[in-house]
Amino acid sequence: MTFRIAILGASGYTGAELVRLIATHPQMEIAALSADRKAGMEMAAVFPFLRHLDLPKLVKIDEVDFSRIDLCFCALPHATSQEVIAKLPRDLKIVDLSADFRLRDPAEYQKWYGQPHAAVELQKEAVYGLTEFYRDEIRKGRLIAGTGCNAATGQYALRPLIAAGVIDLDDIVIDLKAGVSGAGRSLKENLLHAELSGGTHSYSAGGKHRHLGEFDQEFSKLAGREVRVQFTPHLLPMNRGILATVYVKGDPAAVHRALEAAYAQETFLQVLPFGALPSTRDVAGSNYCHIGVTGDRIPGRAVVIAVLDNLTKGSSGQALQNANLTLGIEETTGLMLAPLFP
Amino acid sequence: MTFRIAILGASGYTGAELVRLIATHPQMEIAALSADRKAGMEMAAVFPFLRHLDLPKLVKIDEVDFSRIDLCFCALPHATSQEVIAKLPRDLKIVDLSADFRLRDPAEYQKWYGQPHAAVELQKEAVYGLTEFYRDEIRKGRLIAGTGCNAATGQYALRPLIAAGVIDLDDIVIDLKAGVSGAGRSLKENLLHAELSGGTHSYSAGGKHRHLGEFDQEFSKLAGREVRVQFTPHLLPMNRGILATVYVKGDPAAVHRALEAAYAQETFLQVLPFGALPSTRDVAGSNYCHIGVTGDRIPGRAVVIAVLDNLTKGSSGQALQNANLTLGIEETTGLMLAPLFP
Amino acid sequence: MTFRIAILGASGYTGAELVRLIATHPQMEIAALSADRKAGMEMAAVFPFLRHLDLPKLVKIDEVDFSRIDLCFCALPHATSQEVIAKLPRDLKIVDLSADFRLRDPAEYQKWYGQPHAAVELQKEAVYGLTEFYRDEIRKGRLIAGTGCNAATGQYALRPLIAAGVIDLDDIVIDLKAGVSGAGRSLKENLLHAELSGGTHSYSAGGKHRHLGEFDQEFSKLAGREVRVQFTPHLLPMNRGILATVYVKGDPAAVHRALEAAYAQETFLQVLPFGALPSTRDVAGSNYCHIGVTGDRIPGRAVVIAVLDNLTKGSSGQALQNANLTLGIEETTGLMLAPLFP
Amino acid sequence: MTFRIAILGASGYTGAELVRLIATHPQMEIAALSADRKAGMEMAAVFPFLRHLDLPKLVKIDEVDFSRIDLCFCALPHATSQEVIAKLPRDLKIVDLSADFRLRDPAEYQKWYGQPHAAVELQKEAVYGLTEFYRDEIRKGRLIAGTGCNAATGQYALRPLIAAGVIDLDDIVIDLKAGVSGAGRSLKENLLHAELSGGTHSYSAGGKHRHLGEFDQEFSKLAGREVRVQFTPHLLPMNRGILATVYVKGDPAAVHRALEAAYAQETFLQVLPFGALPSTRDVAGSNYCHIGVTGDRIPGRAVVIAVLDNLTKGSSGQALQNANLTLGIEETTGLMLAPLFP
Repeated sequence: MTFRIAILGASGYTGAELVRLIATHPQMEIAALSADRKAGMEMAAVFPFLRHLDLPKLVKIDEVDFSRIDLCFCALPHATSQEVIAKLPRDLKIVDLSADFRLRDPAEYQKWYGQPHAAVELQKEAVYGLTEFYRDEIRKGRLIAGTGCNAATGQYALRPLIAAGVIDLDDIVIDLKAGVSGAGRSLKENLLHAELSGGTHSYSAGGKHRHLGEFDQEFSKLAGREVRVQFTPHLLPMNRGILATVYVKGDPAAVHRALEAAYAQETFLQVLPFGALPSTRDVAGSNYCHIGVTGDRIPGRAVVIAVLDNLTKGSSGQALQNANLTLGIEETTGLMLAPLFP
Repeated sequence: MTFRIAILGASGYTGAELVRLIATHPQMEIAALSADRKAGMEMAAVFPFLRHLDLPKLVKIDEVDFSRIDLCFCALPHATSQEVIAKLPRDLKIVDLSADFRLRDPAEYQKWYGQPHAAVELQKEAVYGLTEFYRDEIRKGRLIAGTGCNAATGQYALRPLIAAGVIDLDDIVIDLKAGVSGAGRSLKENLLHAELSGGTHSYSAGGKHRHLGEFDQEFSKLAGREVRVQFTPHLLPMNRGILATVYVKGDPAAVHRALEAAYAQETFLQVLPFGALPSTRDVAGSNYCHIGVTGDRIPGRAVVIAVLDNLTKGSSGQALQNANLTLGIEETTGLMLAPLFP
Repeated sequence: MTFRIAILGASGYTGAELVRLIATHPQMEIAALSADRKAGMEMAAVFPFLRHLDLPKLVKIDEVDFSRIDLCFCALPHATSQEVIAKLPRDLKIVDLSADFRLRDPAEYQKWYGQPHAAVELQKEAVYGLTEFYRDEIRKGRLIAGTGCNAATGQYALRPLIAAGVIDLDDIVIDLKAGVSGAGRSLKENLLHAELSGGTHSYSAGGKHRHLGEFDQEFSKLAGREVRVQFTPHLLPMNRGILATVYVKGDPAAVHRALEAAYAQETFLQVLPFGALPSTRDVAGSNYCHIGVTGDRIPGRAVVIAVLDNLTKGSSGQALQNANLTLGIEETTGLMLAPLFP
Repeated sequence: MTFRIAILGASGYTGAELVRLIATHPQMEIAALSADRKAGMEMAAVFPFLRHLDLPKLVKIDEVDFSRIDLCFCALPHATSQEVIAKLPRDLKIVDLSADFRLRDPAEYQKWYGQPHAAVELQKEAVYGLTEFYRDEIRKGRLIAGTGCNAATGQYALRPLIAAGVIDLDDIVIDLKAGVSGAGRSLKENLLHAELSGGTHSYSAGGKHRHLGEFDQEFSKLAGREVRVQFTPHLLPMNRGILATVYVKGDPAAVHRALEAAYAQETFLQVLPFGALPSTRDVAGSNYCHIGVTGDRIPGRAVVIAVLDNLTKGSSGQALQNANLTLGIEETTGLMLAPLFP
């Protein structure tokens, strides 16, 4: 069976990444693509790298006939997404890539995103889309909320450690290095090649980054108590990739064992041998996440390093994995592409 | 049916690219991988980006049981390749990625490569692997010689123009811009990130680049007279991609028409609308070649710009396309991956 | 004596580059900096790399007291520049970095820039600022028009050849590779790091680039007949640097001799030994231009390759060199900085 | 007065950076350049970006007439440096850029560098070259040991905090991001452009990096008790620059005040306003170090971020600053170059 797919917000990077992945998916057909300002254009004009594909023209959202769509990906900006999804048919399966349905608590949403949520009822219904930890809910879910790309990386490193009780919950530091595509196709001075290439800087330091809302929600729920991590992201002169260096207090061997045990059966989550250090280059363009663990000369400390591609495993790959689950397709379909190196 | 594949020289970039592509090929199985100096290592240790694959360990060439191999890719250095292939079984299908069997004439080989050919008999048997122009020969061939990556790019831009007689054969300039992976995984100062990034320079200028041997052979054969092009390559601070800017004298509209007509049925060779200019980014990691044509304010001149990924369409993708043909598999199998952008 | 300097348009890259260079100039003091939209800000907030300098706050142009200024650099956008300069005191020395006063003929200006010139009288008065060829005029001039960065590169390669009569004037091809800072600090999708890094493409191909107006004017004047070159620029994933590969018909040795003779006494124009090929990396951040010459296997053809830093020798360094001349300061003052490598 | 300078090991990046800086130094003259394997070559052949300078030819060390040298920079590899310096005249002023004389304790040297020190007497005599903290010793010193570039960055962030007693000494994490030129001009696969660009990874994680020896020595001495920091370096796809993100426990305002107070009179150490975050781009090619401080949402935690250029302030710029001091020249001479941006 072939499922008919719509992608709303197809003119951004996550939208284009969805098209790239679905292009070789044997059970999905792209039936509609929307892009508000670029409605009327061919996808090939917006993204010439997709010109070999036979794709529908970009349209406005209200031109899409959702009665003929089996699943809709929403790759719209935050805040817009909740408004659009509120108007879609209530029986349409939706995988949302925005931040709008990640947080369960409306107060937390308002705290991190600076405005009240406009679709509180849907927020309750939504399932948090960190695939490996919410499989059952995603299979049964109708509205799947994609996670933040940084939030996914940090959670892959930390959830098994919190669950296994092998680290001090009051002293977790996530120092994160991110490629620029995570910022989207937005026109900002600091995203220009002339300003970004050849250097690095930190941003949203000091506990201001919005993905902290996800860390707080998920880690506290998992631990059964409030957990607050310290999180400092840095922007790197590279297009794809996130590397999270996570500093924890606990026995390094126990940390490594907890990760190996948790991910032994996972296709995409690969725990390296103890002491091996991962590289973002080794997962670029793929749905894989590599995780390495090492100790420190100071006893009782461990460093966990997780890498993934923010556009694939961190957003569009995750979204496709979740779409497979909710449509009853084998979970890894369309996602077995090897990384691109060099 | 699944064909059993060997890759000799699997520790270089073209070898790894072959593995990447074959990883999702439904009718091929990697049965042997060789790498002389790294024999005994796991492929995952040499190329961690391939660690999710279940691959045979790297061995020395003489450890490979060729009786159980259906097709062998040779991704060995120039000169080594001819020695190795001379010792392989005479009924083994071989796709060679080196320069050793590209030139028909032993004298030309010696002129460009500085030494006599060590397997002249095989040289005669070899088929030139520019797929779209040698399909029948490749289908029937046993030893397919992969083309130079620059040579492929220039030929895709020029062959239809020479065949159609729409350009002046005595005044062709190919100004080529190439990414660094074409130089292989070799330890040279000028290939270091600190030396290469952030700048550009020309190399082998003045008619010294070895791929001229292929241009001479192919263009002269096609034209039925001697054709000598001017060719200046430049090294760019990027990993993948070749852009050839080809200056010709002829009617731009006729040039465009000749290319459109020649490639109308080709899956991988895409001629852009007149005036549209291609980008290497739009073919990265894929087997596509985009070709654009524009005129000039000076009447009677045209510029043809062709782009491809040197590791894919320029070498390993081409090799796989040829392997498909010679094994009787549908030509595009395993090659329909969309480019990676950004 | 210390001269008081104003820089109009100080929030762009050429403005900032002027500040960088003047920072170590022993006879200049920055007395005023303007930036329309950023008026009121500290320069350190706009360009933190200049925070160690004691600089005047950014103001609007009409807040500058020009009676206390000895020389004014205009680093304003094209078209704006002519309007602003028309209102400045008629005895103020001005070095303009825009395109507004490069072309002598108002018809040519209108042809290339798409609108009539708004200060035709000033246009007549302006001196073309290609320092090494207009020294006397610049020394005596009041309004110096900085050249296009591409136009400068091409002229350094070609002027001595045209003057010496050693090349065919009807068959000149300039294939140019440019870094992205030449496009300024403008917010365009194709200038984003995610879109530009890792690839290359051509732009304004086919005789459409505005710097052709300068080539036409200067080469025709020099040759005493109409000269029309073919010019194709490419955008490269690097911040600074231009490399012009110039294809000419003529004796390579004569070409090299003509360049060596012309530049023997020039501090900043360095002709490499015959056959040596220059790199943009070797001039980054400096006022030097390196020029290499090689022949081709086809007799009677030569390739001249010139490299310079578009922000230094191609614009702000040239502007400072011209300012030195017109103020009676030693020409190289403040410009002897070595390039930055790696 | 002009001092006659020798640079041993002039064919590496720190050697070339010394030449770049001294090129505009009004009181120094480069009298000798050595490079063992490249002896006999012109510096312009090894580093074409220096071709405009009139430099002595590269020679072997024993060809240098040290009786005519006022100060000698040693930019030799670790271990080689101690052997060479042991043979130099005992009254020659030496600024060493290697690791050989950084550690006071021979046992510590052996622990971190894996072999006994071959010049223990000289080791005692050496002065640790962190200029701002050892000015008096450097002025009087004969043998100045340049610090590690990472070690300098971390110390600029931390020394005032340790001295002021405003942080918990038992819980300091330094997460460091470094450009590739710090690895020198060495031919290693992971330093190739094809392998390094576009991604990031950690190295020497887990307390294995040799610069920890300097942290241990200096922080413990300063605190009057043993201090052990946790230190994880990462390699970034950029040529120059180090960014150290330092996680400390203490009052953020007190941390900021301690840094401001300590560096109020320092030309090159610039403390940003509280909350401002530095970028490596803003110090590239210069001797400046920018330091930012922010708090965290978790009370009692602060993040200190320090950036510098590893080749300038991190090695050759520091070396020149120290040379100025020991020669009695004004400390900032030749070092006031503005950074290069973009």
